[in-house]
Parts: sequence; structure tokens; C-alpha cells
Amino acid sequence: MNALGRKIYLEMPAPSEEDNLPAEERIFRSLRETVPDLRGQDLHMSIGALRSLNPLCENADWKITVSLSWNGSGWEVVGAERGKSKIPAVGLAVDLGSTSVIMRMLDLETGECMSEAGVYNHQIRFGEDILTRIFYSRDQPEHLEEIRRATVDTFLELMRMLQRKTGIDPQNALSVVVAGNTAMTHFLLGLDAFSVFASPYAVETLQPGFYRGTDLELPVRGWVYCYPGLANYLGGDIVSGLVAVGLYRSEKISLFFDVGTNGELVVGNSQFLLCGAGAAGPALEGGVVKTGMRAAEGAVEAVRMTPDQEKKTEENGILPGSVFHLKTIGGSSPVGICGSGIVDMISELFLHGWINIQGTLQPEKSGLIQRQKVQETGEEELAVCYYPGLWFYQSDILEFIRTKAAAATMMEYMLDVSGIEIQDVARFYMAGSFGAHVDVESAVNIGMYPDVERGRIVPAGNTSLEGAQKLLLDRSLLQDIRQILGLMSYVQFGAVDDFLTRMRAAEALPHTDAERYPSVMEKLKALSAQKERTT
Amino acid sequence: MNALGRKIYLEMPAPSEEDNLPAEERIFRSLRETVPDLRGQDLHMSIGALRSLNPLCENADWKITVSLSWNGSGWEVVGAERGKSKIPAVGLAVDLGSTSVIMRMLDLETGECMSEAGVYNHQIRFGEDILTRIFYSRDQPEHLEEIRRATVDTFLELMRMLQRKTGIDPQNALSVVVAGNTAMTHFLLGLDAFSVFASPYAVETLQPGFYRGTDLELPVRGWVYCYPGLANYLGGDIVSGLVAVGLYRSEKISLFFDVGTNGELVVGNSQFLLCGAGAAGPALEGGVVKTGMRAAEGAVEAVRMTPDQEKKTEENGILPGSVFHLKTIGGSSPVGICGSGIVDMISELFLHGWINIQGTLQPEKSGLIQRQKVQETGEEELAVCYYPGLWFYQSDILEFIRTKAAAATMMEYMLDVSGIEIQDVARFYMAGSFGAHVDVESAVNIGMYPDVERGRIVPAGNTSLEGAQKLLLDRSLLQDIRQILGLMSYVQFGAVDDFLTRMRAAEALPHTDAERYPSVMEKLKALSAQKERTT
Repeated sequence: MNALGRKIYLEMPAPSEEDNLPAEERIFRSLRETVPDLRGQDLHMSIGALRSLNPLCENADWKITVSLSWNGSGWEVVGAERGKSKIPAVGLAVDLGSTSVIMRMLDLETGECMSEAGVYNHQIRFGEDILTRIFYSRDQPEHLEEIRRATVDTFLELMRMLQRKTGIDPQNALSVVVAGNTAMTHFLLGLDAFSVFASPYAVETLQPGFYRGTDLELPVRGWVYCYPGLANYLGGDIVSGLVAVGLYRSEKISLFFDVGTNGELVVGNSQFLLCGAGAAGPALEGGVVKTGMRAAEGAVEAVRMTPDQEKKTEENGILPGSVFHLKTIGGSSPVGICGSGIVDMISELFLHGWINIQGTLQPEKSGLIQRQKVQETGEEELAVCYYPGLWFYQSDILEFIRTKAAAATMMEYMLDVSGIEIQDVARFYMAGSFGAHVDVESAVNIGMYPDVERGRIVPAGNTSLEGAQKLLLDRSLLQDIRQILGLMSYVQFGAVDDFLTRMRAAEALPHTDAERYPSVMEKLKALSAQKERTT
Repeated sequence: MNALGRKIYLEMPAPSEEDNLPAEERIFRSLRETVPDLRGQDLHMSIGALRSLNPLCENADWKITVSLSWNGSGWEVVGAERGKSKIPAVGLAVDLGSTSVIMRMLDLETGECMSEAGVYNHQIRFGEDILTRIFYSRDQPEHLEEIRRATVDTFLELMRMLQRKTGIDPQNALSVVVAGNTAMTHFLLGLDAFSVFASPYAVETLQPGFYRGTDLELPVRGWVYCYPGLANYLGGDIVSGLVAVGLYRSEKISLFFDVGTNGELVVGNSQFLLCGAGAAGPALEGGVVKTGMRAAEGAVEAVRMTPDQEKKTEENGILPGSVFHLKTIGGSSPVGICGSGIVDMISELFLHGWINIQGTLQPEKSGLIQRQKVQETGEEELAVCYYPGLWFYQSDILEFIRTKAAAATMMEYMLDVSGIEIQDVARFYMAGSFGAHVDVESAVNIGMYPDVERGRIVPAGNTSLEGAQKLLLDRSLLQDIRQILGLMSYVQFGAVDDFLTRMRAAEALPHTDAERYPSVMEKLKALSAQKERTT
């Protein structure tokens, strides 16, 4: 373990006339004698720790456990305890998302994750989406302070939850690593984030580095590190993600894609890292689809269609549920559909011919496809009923196809720019909640993911949190972060002429150029052959 | 100037799409471009400064003045102002004495002392002498906190005074250097100081280094440095004094003597520094003498006797004032006598034969010498009336001779230990208020100072303050401080066998070995010859 915090048990000689080194220097001497890597190192002590030494050291017969926290340039003693401490050396890894904030408590000696907690970001009070919060706080120091305070409160709630779960007060944390996008990091630091979304996108800081917990009003002993970012849209969460998957360490080229409201994309290896970001669209999180919803209780997260039951349905009128096999989060009745469900849905509709290559619904295929009024506009359009009262609309499908086209084009474009053939990409790391839950097969079917050997597509999960955890346990990664920032170069998709042309070509299922998706073509052929056999 | 703080005016390009570096990194880049010595340096920014950048930078058209403070290992931006700042870069140098605290505001660009203020240490509320305060706070965290608070309040009062005098808020200070003895430094840091006076003298810290102002509840922008000490009795005030007089820089051997309640002594050059400390005695500050007092309004600070008037007095009975020429602080009527006055007094009494070599009063010499009741004991003893109602007692004289013998023996012993002849000592730096005010000739006459060419005896003044100021203006002296601490070795006088024997030999005027004081002997001869001529 080479963690950002550590506890060290010291047995020191009691002071004598011959050896009356002061308590602080006595501890430093003992640390240097006990721990080889501290030899010759500059050591510091926080004023709080210094004040705690008397009468603690004497009462403990100079057998104490000291807590060390890395402050970016050296070790600082941030606490002392009597005897051998029974409290493990803990640290906190935080994924500071705009919607959810996840915090893990880690044992810095064993690397074990002791507990994890997640809550909605308290900032939501000031706006569901980041932009609303940014406008709320823009040029309004009191509002900004409210949002900063809400961010801190989110941390405090998570700390209370972790305390309940583990019995250990997270205030003991010797180090905290926070990975968040640029706006979230700004809010944690109490900085106006308007510049994140406004040209010329010159934010307040992209490399905040280490702060004392108290500087940020976080009641932790140790230092807090905020992951740096490369640009406004490529924040600390992405750099953390790169650390998590480690693609900068290999000679082999890989691709990292964090698919969420925004899509952040990195292609590269140990020699280069080409990065881009774009609005992959809230559609991916179920945000645009009319019955779409977040991944919560009752959200349809997986969809399968059965040809047999489809036929039966056509004979017997509308019997929804017999044609669609729906899996919901929590197993309750469906109340809406989330991102992974949408991908499955479109993939199944497409494979079963209910929508054509352009995504147009084919009403002749099923009685479940009907004209239906859209609540918001009052106008009618085609929609498919996937559960009584739940409709998936034509416009939803087209919107989602545009979204997936944007995502796929970002990948395609980035590879082209770097002169890389798709077969040369060793791994496609699909980060984020979407990447973790979406069915890879379905994502390939709709042309969102490339049609490559499925083993090369790696759902990488919450890489932002993983990267925070990894750094917490291995401070040598600070060097990697410098390397990553040095390698990264930013491509602005908006600035690219043929991006829109390419994207339009991708606005089909799976793509206007079907040859790019040989496995999908085969599936279609197989399904069509099966259908012919059964009819 | 190579000060611990600096202000730098930056003209930065406004952010554009092509150059949208964040505000923090933009300032760092500009600093590295503008200031050659910052190139390649690690730069930091306080959270407060970071938060102040927006909208300041934009409003100022990216023409700002940043304040930098040295934190011990690098520069930290601790503030930003619009345009070219009209407030000079200021720092505070502090002599944190147990009685008085002196603070200077310095212009860190010109080195000019803008103003100085001094007040009694608010700690006095908890005890006139350090020991009382130490016992008050020992093992009583609330009492310790009161004393810490009083120390901070002393700083705050001084800051208010400096603000009134200069019109500049000392909270702007980019750096503060504090030189105090070990107990005073402990109290400022909020540390129990009992160990300073109790065996085995293992204190809490001797090398506190740099703290943020806020860590110490000092409302200043920049970092606060507390001078380190070598041992409990050889604190930061002495190391600061050595920096002030610079004796560690020369090949020539010099002696540094800070004469106060305690006497701290250093002998050495650029190769070695031998140090010792001992109770020189509060007698030197007028503390033991019965009509003794601090150097305040009405204190007799200089005494001369006239042989003619002495004779006249013998004829006319007691006519005090005709034989003693007294100079008081503030020019008012005498109310007591302070250290420099006492040295003059004993020197004059001795030269005029009113006391003999042992310091015994010779009543036959003057009607001013009479038996007198000592208020405290109710017993009678011989005393000399130096002003109506003011008596200088036999026991005072003997007490003072013991004190001066201790001081002289410390010097003598230290030179012997280092194998140095008195003629090889280039300079005798006499530090402190006593050294500044005492008449060198009188101090030699009574055998307190050695009988050497008077030019080699240098009254060095408040070297603690001078050293603080010097460091504030030249951070390269931090390296000198490391050198000093490395060179210093501590001699405990108490541990020395023949120290008492030597001291007893020095308990005479000027010394039992009169040959050591040839110039005094000549003076006595001359006076005696003059007397013979006049009688």
C-alpha cells in the first residue's frame, strides 16, 4: 500500500536529560527511524496534532499511533492516539456527481472497501440540471455559498451514513479524494461555475490540488485532493476514469467513453490521449423519452420480445406484456423506462421489424403500434404500447437515434482523427451507469457501440469513483495524473466540419453503412429465416 | 529584496477560445513569465485567493496585483487586487517578549520600517513572570487557552496600533516572523510550556516553522513563521539574535550575550557555535533591588558622582542630589532605579570608595550611608540614600554582584571551554534592552563586561526583533537558520563542576583577580591621585 494516508505505531524512548528532544521532533525522528521511506523526508505537523501531544504522549508512555496525510509535497502528521490505535487508517473516495454523490470508506492499509454510501446531491434543491444551478449562483455570492454549503452537506450526510454502517467516524479520514466534473469541483470549492458553460470556457481552476479539510469546511483530519481536469467539459471525473481503467499505461490503444448526459471520450495509449466531449444527450438517461425516467424503482431496465407471442397478440388484439418481456428495477410494476431499457427496446423493435432502418414505426406489424396523443403537445403520433398506459413514441425513437448517432460518431470521428482503425482498438471501456447497465448486444444492434468482438467492449462501471479509490490507495498515481494531463489533447467536436455529415450517416439502425455491422446483419438474417420457418 | 512576501503586478491576456486557461493557472503562467525566479517553481493558491478571482480578474481587465507568501517550501498566492495595488507589500516582524511585545510593519519591497509599536504582553494578567503563567496553565487546557488568547490579543492590539499609525491594515501582511523564547512561542501556538522549566526539558516543539495565520487565529493573509530554538532556554529569540548580528557568518570569533532575566550566551564563528544559558538574574532588570523598577518613567537610568560635591556633602550633612547626578527616564523625579542605573550606581560607589572590592558599604565615606530598615524584613542594614526617600541597600549591592559575577563567569567559562583567549574575540555583542542602555564603561568597572578595547563591545539592541525583521526581508536566511541550528551545541552551566568556584572568584569589584581589569585599576589609581591632589 502506498496510500495518501497512513497510521504508524511508534514506541519512543521517554525524554531524559540526555535525550530531551521535543515531542514534535521526537515523533519525526521516530518516524524516520521506523519507516524507511520517511528517512530524509520533510515532515510537518498540523497545529491540531501538535496541540494534542501533551499530555497524550506522556500518558501513553510514548507509545503512540500517529496519523499521516500526504499534502501534495510531503507528509503531515494530522493526529496522534494513545498506544496502538484500534481505528484503522481510513480514507474517503468520492464520486461527486451532479445527480448522485457516492462515497466509499476505505481501509488504507488493506485497501478494503469498508462501506459505500450514495445520496442525491443536495444541490438538486437549486436545480435538477447543472445549468439551472449555475444560473442560480451566477454573480450571486450568497447563492453560490448556498450551493457550496449544499455540496458540503451532501458530504456530511454521506459521512453520517458511513459512520452508521461502519461504526467509524469518517472525520478520522486521513485523506479524501474527490472526482467530479468541472462544475461540481467548482461548487465544492465555492467557485462560480458559469465559465464552465460559457465561451471562452476559461474556468476558475482545473488543477485545484490539495486542500486542508478545514479549508473546504469538510470536517476531516487529513487533506482533500480534487482530481484535476483538462478542460471545462473534461473534468476530474474523466481523469479519474482514465486512472481507473489505466489505458494510458499500455502500448495498446484503447478507447474510454463515459456515456451520460454528456459523453466524454478519450482514445489513446501511453503515447497520446485524444479527448473530446459532447452532448450525448439526456436521452441516454431516459431524460428525453416521454415515459423515460432515471434508473429507479419501477424503471424498465431490460426488454425482450418473443416472436411467438407477437403473433398471438396480433390474433387476439392488444395483450401487452405477452409480447414484451420487461424487467424492472426492484421487480415492481413498470412505471417508465430508463436508459438501458430504451436501448433494449429499440434494438428489439428493430430486430423484430417493428421499426425500419430509419427508426420509423411499422403499424402493420402490431396492434400495439397506434396513433397516440402526446400530452405535452396535444398532437398525435405513432407510438408503441410496451405496458398498459406506457407508450414509446415515434419521436422518442428518432430522438434516441440521434443521440446514439452522436455517441457513435464521436467514437468514429475520434478514431479517424487519430488515424486508428477500429480493429486496432484493444478495449472499448464504457464507463458510467449507462455503460454498466446497458446490454452490449443491444447497444451494438442499434449501432451505438461498434460491432467488434464483444470481449473488447468492457463495461467499466463508476470509473470516477474507481479512480478516486485507486489514487487514495496509491499516491504514486499523482505522477500518472501529471502524465495523463501532459498527454491529453482536446478535440472540440463542434469545431469539426464533417462531424454533422458523419452523424447524419449514423442516424440509422445500426448505420446507413450496414457493412460496418456484420454481426447485426447476420442476426437480422437469422431472425428473418426463423420467421419464415414459423409462418 | 528577497522577502518572505511579495506583490507582483500582472497584465494577462483576457481568456479567449484559443487561450482559455483557467484563472488560477493563468495567474501561475503569468507569474512564471513575469518573474524569472518563479520559473519552474511549484505555485499554490489559498482557497480564499482562489475564491476572490471572480469577478475581480474580469472587472480588472486581467490586470491585477497578486500577493505571494512563502510557506516554507514554495510560494502561495494569498490575495489578488484590481490593477496596480496602492497598498505596499507589508510584513510584520515581532519580538514576542514575556514582558513586552514589539511589532514592526515593514515594506517588503523597500525594506523600510514603516512603523513600530510596542505593548505589554497581555499574558501579564496571568502572572508577572513566565513561571507563574506556566503554572497557571499547566494541565489546565482552559487556562492555556486563556493565555494563548491573550497572546493573540496582544498581536491584535499591536496591529490596531500599526494601522492607526500607517493607515494600512496589518491584515494585509504577506508574512509574519515571530521571534520569542521557547515559552512564549509555546503560548502563541497554544502549547503547554511546563516542560520549558521542568527536567528533562523536553518541550513540545523547538522547530515550529510555518503556519497559516488562520491556524494561529492571527488575521493575516500570509504565513507566520516562528523562529526555531535550540533548547528550552535557548529559544527563537536567541537564534533570531544570531541572525541579527551575523556572527555565524564570519571566520572571526565573536560572542553574543543577551542579558536579561536570563542570560543567553553564544560564542563562535562560521565553524562552531557554543551556547549556554543561565539565570543572569532579574537583578539586571531592577527586579531584585529594593527600589528597583523596570525601565519606565521616573526610573534612574544613569548615575554620576562628583568628588567635589561629595566633600561638600560631608561638611554639610546630608544633601542628596548634590553628590549623585541622576538621569531619569522621561526626565521626571526619580521613583526608583532600573538596570543601567544600578550598574552606574555600583560602578560609581566603587570608584569613589564608598564600597570596597567586596561591595561592602563604607559608612565613614559619607553621611548618605546609614543603617536603614528594610520594609520587607523589618531588619536594619546599611544603605546609601541616592535621592530623598530612595535607598540602595547593602544586600542589593551583594545580590547584584552575584548576578554580574554569574554573567561574567558565563562569558569567561564559555571562552575557556572553547579554548579561546579573550583577545581573540573580535566582537562582544551585548543584546537586549540592558545591553542597549547600560554604560559600557560602568559595566567594565564592576567587572560585568570584560576589560577590552571598548570598540569591541557592541550594544546590539533588540536583536530578537532585528533578526525577525532581517528574515522577513531575506528568506535566504532560512538556510542560515538551518546552518545555525546545525552549528550550535549546548553547554549546561549547571552541569559544570568549577562554575561555582569561578563565579565566587568573580564576586568582587571588578574581580578578585584585579589583573584582568587593567583599565579599571588605572582609573582607580587616577581617581585616588586626583583625590590626594584635592585633599
